[in-house]
Amino acid sequence: MPAHITITALDGFPLVQPGDDLPALILDALAANSLTLQDGDVLVVAHKVVSKAEGRLIRLADVVPSPEADALARETGKDPRFLELVLRESREIVRTRPGLVIAEHRHGWICANAAIDRSNVQQGDDGDDYVLLLPKDPDASARMIRQRLQEATGATIAVIINDTHGRPFRIGAMGVAIGVAGLAPVSDLRGEKDLFGYTMQTSEIATADELAAAASLLQGQTAQGRPVVLIRGAHYQPDEQATARQLVRPRELDLFR
Amino acid sequence: MPAHITITALDGFPLVQPGDDLPALILDALAANSLTLQDGDVLVVAHKVVSKAEGRLIRLADVVPSPEADALARETGKDPRFLELVLRESREIVRTRPGLVIAEHRHGWICANAAIDRSNVQQGDDGDDYVLLLPKDPDASARMIRQRLQEATGATIAVIINDTHGRPFRIGAMGVAIGVAGLAPVSDLRGEKDLFGYTMQTSEIATADELAAAASLLQGQTAQGRPVVLIRGAHYQPDEQATARQLVRPRELDLFR
Repeated sequence: MPAHITITALDGFPLVQPGDDLPALILDALAANSLTLQDGDVLVVAHKVVSKAEGRLIRLADVVPSPEADALARETGKDPRFLELVLRESREIVRTRPGLVIAEHRHGWICANAAIDRSNVQQGDDGDDYVLLLPKDPDASARMIRQRLQEATGATIAVIINDTHGRPFRIGAMGVAIGVAGLAPVSDLRGEKDLFGYTMQTSEIATADELAAAASLLQGQTAQGRPVVLIRGAHYQPDEQATARQLVRPRELDLFR
Repeated sequence: MPAHITITALDGFPLVQPGDDLPALILDALAANSLTLQDGDVLVVAHKVVSKAEGRLIRLADVVPSPEADALARETGKDPRFLELVLRESREIVRTRPGLVIAEHRHGWICANAAIDRSNVQQGDDGDDYVLLLPKDPDASARMIRQRLQEATGATIAVIINDTHGRPFRIGAMGVAIGVAGLAPVSDLRGEKDLFGYTMQTSEIATADELAAAASLLQGQTAQGRPVVLIRGAHYQPDEQATARQLVRPRELDLFR
């Protein structure tokens, strides 16, 4: 049997509400899909359900824009209340142009709107607009989900929380890892030899991002959204101390800041 | 049965030599792995075997550096013959620092060394060093492979040629598509509604890059390299006119050039 990986999206995952017990929902969905976790499995969870369970919904009407947000709104034509949240979530505004704000999130991710989502966020009973921030600490969320699932199943697994980011140079967004537990997000091949005994040139592979992208193929963004995906058969380096911050290139080593 | 994708690496793929009939080698390997192509399959082929079959190996001893390459060598500490090839393959040198050259390849890819590989390239009988350039026209290579496989099997498939690129902001390289045939590399979700009827914010997904990254999980970079990967069950938009150039962000729309 040749080496293979299977990627399975959990069908029928419920709409998540603030305060929901996300690991319990995942365990229920695994059972409903007749899936049993096995050692080495990777569970990829879209950040939106993590953020919702953690109550990271913000009602725009409750946000008072700062003068800085008002200035950014004049520059970009975007909602100043939304930009106030972008500023609060960011370390730095990296680039702007009309209709677009690229920010460095406090966690280090450089992406549009500090990763704040307006789509796939329900309106409140009040008819007001809500937006969704990233989880407060996505690595901690991943660790919590992993621990609960491991306790319930006895399997040793890895958990990735993913989001969809655009990137420089290339058109189209793709899945990336913003929280990890149990696996080294970057596989270090330094010192390994290639087919002909040369030392590897490309020595670091962003395994967690490749897994996040693979899961994204099934998660979808629209009404058929399936936020939880099980990946089986992928090779990764186990790491109990892993953090997705290992995927952040330090500013002083980045030629494109 | 929940939605799922399988990713299978063809075992025992032979070392490719200049002039080899790559589609014939792929058909042999599919048969040896007891795999039959089906409608909707995506075959991901590492560029290295395409480049080798197309004879894109260059002996460094045959390369005479230009004054520009010599200057770049003094700046970066790299081999001036290698840099001469980087310059020939590039439209522009985008960034440099000691030990590193980021170039815009003629096809639009912005990556280290204009995507020229030194690892996984055999030494010649003469003991000299060879390097491997990208295929001359990766889309044409993908179309040729697709056509031959479709003629031989009767299945309607897509073909992606992938490479491994680093990127700004994030640590670690990952699989990306540099040639496509039969599928839209960017899935356009514009106009689709999300779960709650909002128009999508993230409207373009780089499906070909997500598939390229998923395949990369099994291809490996080292002695266990498996250059040909079959992906089954992925949803994509068929496109007979597709080109990987659709993944290149036009310079005037890029905030990080």
